Amino acid sequence: MVHLTRLRLNRDWAISDDGIVDRGVDSDLAVKMKDGFKNVRWHLDRERGVATTEKPGEHLARYTVPIRPMLGCVAVAPHSTQAPPGTGDSGRWGGNMDFNEIVEGATVYLPVNVPGALLYVGDGHAAQGDGELNGNALETSMDVEFTVEVVPHKSLMGPRVESATHIMAMGLAGSLDDAFRAATANMAQWLTDDYKLTPSEIAQVLGTAAEYKVSEVADRNAGIVLKINKDRLQPLTPAK
Amino acid sequence: MVHLTRLRLNRDWAISDDGIVDRGVDSDLAVKMKDGFKNVRWHLDRERGVATTEKPGEHLARYTVPIRPMLGCVAVAPHSTQAPPGTGDSGRWGGNMDFNEIVEGATVYLPVNVPGALLYVGDGHAAQGDGELNGNALETSMDVEFTVEVVPHKSLMGPRVESATHIMAMGLAGSLDDAFRAATANMAQWLTDDYKLTPSEIAQVLGTAAEYKVSEVADRNAGIVLKINKDRLQPLTPAK
Amino acid sequence: MVHLTRLRLNRDWAISDDGIVDRGVDSDLAVKMKDGFKNVRWHLDRERGVATTEKPGEHLARYTVPIRPMLGCVAVAPHSTQAPPGTGDSGRWGGNMDFNEIVEGATVYLPVNVPGALLYVGDGHAAQGDGELNGNALETSMDVEFTVEVVPHKSLMGPRVESATHIMAMGLAGSLDDAFRAATANMAQWLTDDYKLTPSEIAQVLGTAAEYKVSEVADRNAGIVLKINKDRLQPLTPAK
Amino acid sequence: MVHLTRLRLNRDWAISDDGIVDRGVDSDLAVKMKDGFKNVRWHLDRERGVATTEKPGEHLARYTVPIRPMLGCVAVAPHSTQAPPGTGDSGRWGGNMDFNEIVEGATVYLPVNVPGALLYVGDGHAAQGDGELNGNALETSMDVEFTVEVVPHKSLMGPRVESATHIMAMGLAGSLDDAFRAATANMAQWLTDDYKLTPSEIAQVLGTAAEYKVSEVADRNAGIVLKINKDRLQPLTPAK
Repeated sequence: MVHLTRLRLNRDWAISDDGIVDRGVDSDLAVKMKDGFKNVRWHLDRERGVATTEKPGEHLARYTVPIRPMLGCVAVAPHSTQAPPGTGDSGRWGGNMDFNEIVEGATVYLPVNVPGALLYVGDGHAAQGDGELNGNALETSMDVEFTVEVVPHKSLMGPRVESATHIMAMGLAGSLDDAFRAATANMAQWLTDDYKLTPSEIAQVLGTAAEYKVSEVADRNAGIVLKINKDRLQPLTPAK
Repeated sequence: MVHLTRLRLNRDWAISDDGIVDRGVDSDLAVKMKDGFKNVRWHLDRERGVATTEKPGEHLARYTVPIRPMLGCVAVAPHSTQAPPGTGDSGRWGGNMDFNEIVEGATVYLPVNVPGALLYVGDGHAAQGDGELNGNALETSMDVEFTVEVVPHKSLMGPRVESATHIMAMGLAGSLDDAFRAATANMAQWLTDDYKLTPSEIAQVLGTAAEYKVSEVADRNAGIVLKINKDRLQPLTPAK
Repeated sequence: MVHLTRLRLNRDWAISDDGIVDRGVDSDLAVKMKDGFKNVRWHLDRERGVATTEKPGEHLARYTVPIRPMLGCVAVAPHSTQAPPGTGDSGRWGGNMDFNEIVEGATVYLPVNVPGALLYVGDGHAAQGDGELNGNALETSMDVEFTVEVVPHKSLMGPRVESATHIMAMGLAGSLDDAFRAATANMAQWLTDDYKLTPSEIAQVLGTAAEYKVSEVADRNAGIVLKINKDRLQPLTPAK
Repeated sequence: MVHLTRLRLNRDWAISDDGIVDRGVDSDLAVKMKDGFKNVRWHLDRERGVATTEKPGEHLARYTVPIRPMLGCVAVAPHSTQAPPGTGDSGRWGGNMDFNEIVEGATVYLPVNVPGALLYVGDGHAAQGDGELNGNALETSMDVEFTVEVVPHKSLMGPRVESATHIMAMGLAGSLDDAFRAATANMAQWLTDDYKLTPSEIAQVLGTAAEYKVSEVADRNAGIVLKINKDRLQPLTPAK
């Protein structure tokens, strides 16, 4: 478990582009967007906490984006016997998840697969919409501080994230449909292991408390995140 | 455009179940959930604004769900020349969208396809998690008041919803992947028509401001909703 | 069960077009194909058994298509209590399946859902590639003769087709991935009911004998067909 | 381009199992198949050319599978700058494609990405149904002979295979829906480059001549293969 204690920009610009990735376009939008993926340079005003494009088009002259620094990559080694995956890939072991709630204060849970876990972090984004629709977010540099804690005897089907208000189970797969199944199964395992819920109880809780968002569509795996507000879970917490 | 001015429960119970629909289960979770879809009856405490199961399992004795009345169905006639679709279906014309932000105060935009539009509403839910994972939400009865306004010369690729804080474009299709494309195309059309954005500008706004949530997975069409916070759009609003 | 005893063209031309439907294009191919869906008129030479475009482009001057008449639609009424679906739709009850092996000599199995079944046939194609990629095939007119037989006490998850050489189970769903699952489940039911195979035996037979083809991608439902060669099944046939 | 001149079994047994992978099961079939993936050992009778299970279940006592040796893996190095992918993965560079038409006599076309290409072959299957539904085929050992030829100035979007009767373009992606798009785009590129067809002509040829089959669903990438009979293409062949 990796707790991000501090995540701060250390540069006043970021690079992004103006395209929309394949998973976001139907055939008409593909034609409309055919000239996309030109570089766009953003100015990061750290004092005001907003980003603006350096050379905005006519209609974006006053457009600003609230800065919300996040890490695109948090990962451990997936296994010891095979070739390591590229840093652009993702899986049960984390990786290039590009989830915009991996911010200062968040805790990321990943399984330990090899001695020493071999944690790495990277891919700093000054801000990112859901999905990382441009293929890039506002790519920049940042100072990162984190603490690591080992939680023994815990099994995880996929990456999990915790914020002050929510627990979040991620599903990563080759399509949004399969990522949705994976996120649901990941959360069902969480509710079984930590809250001792029966299958019937899991269905009732998810049916009434599930919040699903699309985390990313830009890489080989698409991501769906299933969030549950901790207020809902508080009455379920088993006595220790 | 249909503005929901008042949406209030008029009964103190609701029916749901304890299963998870096919789009939510992988093969392991399917085995775990195989005894699901038994009826669950909920008590609706309208004074406290919470729902509780009448006969909770051991671990749900203290579980409560905030009541948030919504309409599963808002629809117009899709066309005049074909047989009408069933009320469980959905499409560009709205229908059984099961989106939990169609609540009191929301405005739903649907295209007028036949003289008189032939609007209908229904399928009241006391509360519903994203996705309507049980196939049912907390199905109940409610008093509905709404106003209707005709907006001339407006083209819509799919249903749209507006709240106090967000504009929302819905995509409805046979898979989450295609629904994601449809939601993105629907919002791109909105930004083109009402904000005069160029394709490059649309990509930049969506890449930094998109919020995607899964609205529903329980019916023939799956739904994805692309939301944009109005604060982001305010500086883009063209002079009238 | 509907046996197509005779399926013959009665006209010497057909209409099609030159587009590729959304399910067949990625964003690059969408741009390339953006001017598609112009009408193409084909001449049907019934004596030679070939179709040729009336005004071929430069490179298709010598291109010919073997005529293989098929029915796009074979259907019964799906249910008695809801509004009937449009004739462009498909489902467990058959419908607009656009499967190019529904030809003279084939037998189509559909469930009887209402008294009298309410069978209809239509949508004659002089020839069609897998998938009906243009949205249209070579649409034409034909003489149709068929016989109908009622098979009592038989349950079908989806449409089934039988030829001289194969049994074929169709899956129809909102995505190819879900259609693949539906076709497999449909065939597993067939092998259970008619051949008494256990789950382990079904897996072994499908793993070694399955032939999967894409039947159609042009309509709301996509179709996958799972075929098994009757030679493989002959040794499994239970004594009557 | 790799031409498989000889592919012969050198062992009289193979290992497989009796499960069905996730992409092949819906929730009901998942429950039915929950005890699957037990080892099944097959006897390979090379003289008669058939495979039989060593300990068949009651209904499979007389079940035989025609032996048709194939290579699951034919691959080159994908790139020189990143970590190599595992041998279970697949992509534009080939890999673990598990396509049952990569048999003796077939030619596989792969792009050369690094000096020397770094070709490898492996994963011998005595026989395999479409999809490799069990996750394994009849896994065995074989003698392989092949010749390699370098074709200069040729661009390939994905792997291609040629047999005596067909040209075949493969699509590999995280879902069957995306694999279908990739196979279609790969074949469109082939028809553009080698046959000089215009977009309109490509649509007409594919609409009338496409044969789509599912090659595999067992690994991270699913595969769809678009085949065209060479008889259709012969009249299109440009003068050299």
